[in-house]
Amino acid sequence: MTDHIQFSSEKDALILLDQRYLPNREDWFECRTTDDICYALVVMVVRGAPAIGVTAAYGCYLAGREVQGLGGDWKVNLEAKLDQIHDARPTAVNLRWAVREMRRVWEEAGDVSLEELLGIWLERAREIHAGDIEMCELIGKFGGALIDDGDTVMTHCNAGALATAGYGTALGVIRGAVDQGKKVSVIANETRPFLQGARLTAYELHKDGIPVKVACDNACALLMKRGLVDKVVVGADRITANGDAVNKIGTFGVAIIAKRFNVPFYVAAPLYTIDLETPTGDDVTIEDRDPREVTHIGDHRIPPEGVEVYNLAFDPTPNELITGIITEKGVLYPPYTESIRKLFE
Amino acid sequence: MTDHIQFSSEKDALILLDQRYLPNREDWFECRTTDDICYALVVMVVRGAPAIGVTAAYGCYLAGREVQGLGGDWKVNLEAKLDQIHDARPTAVNLRWAVREMRRVWEEAGDVSLEELLGIWLERAREIHAGDIEMCELIGKFGGALIDDGDTVMTHCNAGALATAGYGTALGVIRGAVDQGKKVSVIANETRPFLQGARLTAYELHKDGIPVKVACDNACALLMKRGLVDKVVVGADRITANGDAVNKIGTFGVAIIAKRFNVPFYVAAPLYTIDLETPTGDDVTIEDRDPREVTHIGDHRIPPEGVEVYNLAFDPTPNELITGIITEKGVLYPPYTESIRKLFE
Repeated sequence: MTDHIQFSSEKDALILLDQRYLPNREDWFECRTTDDICYALVVMVVRGAPAIGVTAAYGCYLAGREVQGLGGDWKVNLEAKLDQIHDARPTAVNLRWAVREMRRVWEEAGDVSLEELLGIWLERAREIHAGDIEMCELIGKFGGALIDDGDTVMTHCNAGALATAGYGTALGVIRGAVDQGKKVSVIANETRPFLQGARLTAYELHKDGIPVKVACDNACALLMKRGLVDKVVVGADRITANGDAVNKIGTFGVAIIAKRFNVPFYVAAPLYTIDLETPTGDDVTIEDRDPREVTHIGDHRIPPEGVEVYNLAFDPTPNELITGIITEKGVLYPPYTESIRKLFE
Repeated sequence: MTDHIQFSSEKDALILLDQRYLPNREDWFECRTTDDICYALVVMVVRGAPAIGVTAAYGCYLAGREVQGLGGDWKVNLEAKLDQIHDARPTAVNLRWAVREMRRVWEEAGDVSLEELLGIWLERAREIHAGDIEMCELIGKFGGALIDDGDTVMTHCNAGALATAGYGTALGVIRGAVDQGKKVSVIANETRPFLQGARLTAYELHKDGIPVKVACDNACALLMKRGLVDKVVVGADRITANGDAVNKIGTFGVAIIAKRFNVPFYVAAPLYTIDLETPTGDDVTIEDRDPREVTHIGDHRIPPEGVEVYNLAFDPTPNELITGIITEKGVLYPPYTESIRKLFE
């Protein structure tokens, strides 16, 4: 797959493959300002927790560039812009992690000029970008070992190359298994309302020649009952200290159904998705998004005018439904409070 | 609500509100031939088990009218057309019931002319049509008593006035509760792929002034976890001898999730939905529909070209997940094999 997050030194801009129009159109979206970055995050030009983190890191650099052109105290101006990026979306921890990381290296650098800070930040953003792909490949290595030859794996939403800097987390596990010489098929839940499964997961797996079939989210129980699903692997936007995994709305339902049919349910995510400061999934703010994502498909309104809708974007899957959490340091098993604590010690 | 199934004596035609275009357009579809009837059933101009039954009954009459214009043995010609209607869709038992019922009255009538048979059949079709509304009102009376004042009821698909001759089964229960003076709100699962919930359930409840909010099918677990759902009430296309309920794809998942959160799960359906000849839900043929219903919304294709999809239209919910089955003769409770058998004795 093409690298969908590209920093152009020439243009001094972050160039993103616009995921709103995939798979029908491969448009590119240029970010030069903090507003561009926040817009891209909010409307989901780019989405997926790790990809959001990488974008936010470059976003801090672009915020600094923008501040160069402004009057007043650059530090005050810059802090305000970092806050703006930090708050663009509430659920994925990676966004906060990236902004905090950029603040950390700023503090570490001491009394630097804005010019110097920009150099440090661009280098760090590039490291985060490259590091993300490496992390995904390690997740793929550890997770791939859990997949058996001939397995059909169900996934929800898109935790693929498009949700990371490349390779993917949940789809990294699929790619890892394929790289280990196994034959793997994928059932991609279409993932209403934004249809990341039908659009993005199908797009990138089909492009890579990995067999993929799309199913309505509603088909989950019947497909599992028919024995068509050997494992579930999903990503996560945030994993709390007890191992609850907050991921795309519908994941929780898939996990409940998987439990009934004894289908192993894995979460694949880099370590920095684990938020030790948040005790459980119930403590995570769930983003309530624009109702239009549910009411409209393109310009076409589905429910009658005047009828309201829910558009909760994520749900927390409780740790007891999770067979294992696949990270770049290996696979964590229950009890998660303990296995997570040990890993960070 | 307007009567969405109308027989016109003047035109000698069955006139159906075309549900494919609701809520955006109120088009009417005229059926004069067996092919018209079968087309309307297959593409879902009309859908919902009881409405399919009523349509099929009029369809048999129209088949007779059509045979009048043909040469050859009218009985042989008519039998072939009845078979065609009988086989138009495989899952709903009401279709078979209606054709069988028309065959029964033919047999009962003995050696009648086609002219005489047509008179008998039109009368019987009208009785079935009127009887269906009465049945729904009784289901509403018995089911309404199970709903508490202030309840929020989740429903899946559309088991409403539009799925019956009027009033509805699952939505009949809601209307029954409202008629009993209770305040009831509804969460309509949008019900991919055909979006009967977002389109039809929202349309008819909103028209009747009953508060309704649409949710993606994926939101079910989170909404229940947040305590926003007091009861689930759904319809059924077939209930087998053991009380398993075959209904729109996704119902099974809702039932599994409801069980986890101890949300009562009711199925509302007229007695003739119960198929004593089929032992369990696993013995029912599940309709595999045109993939385009999943891949396309309007003319817009969602997954990339070349990617296949599942479009299984129904799933069987096992009896152990069902709190009660609401019929026009009262509410059945587990063990269903026994309570169903008693009812038919």
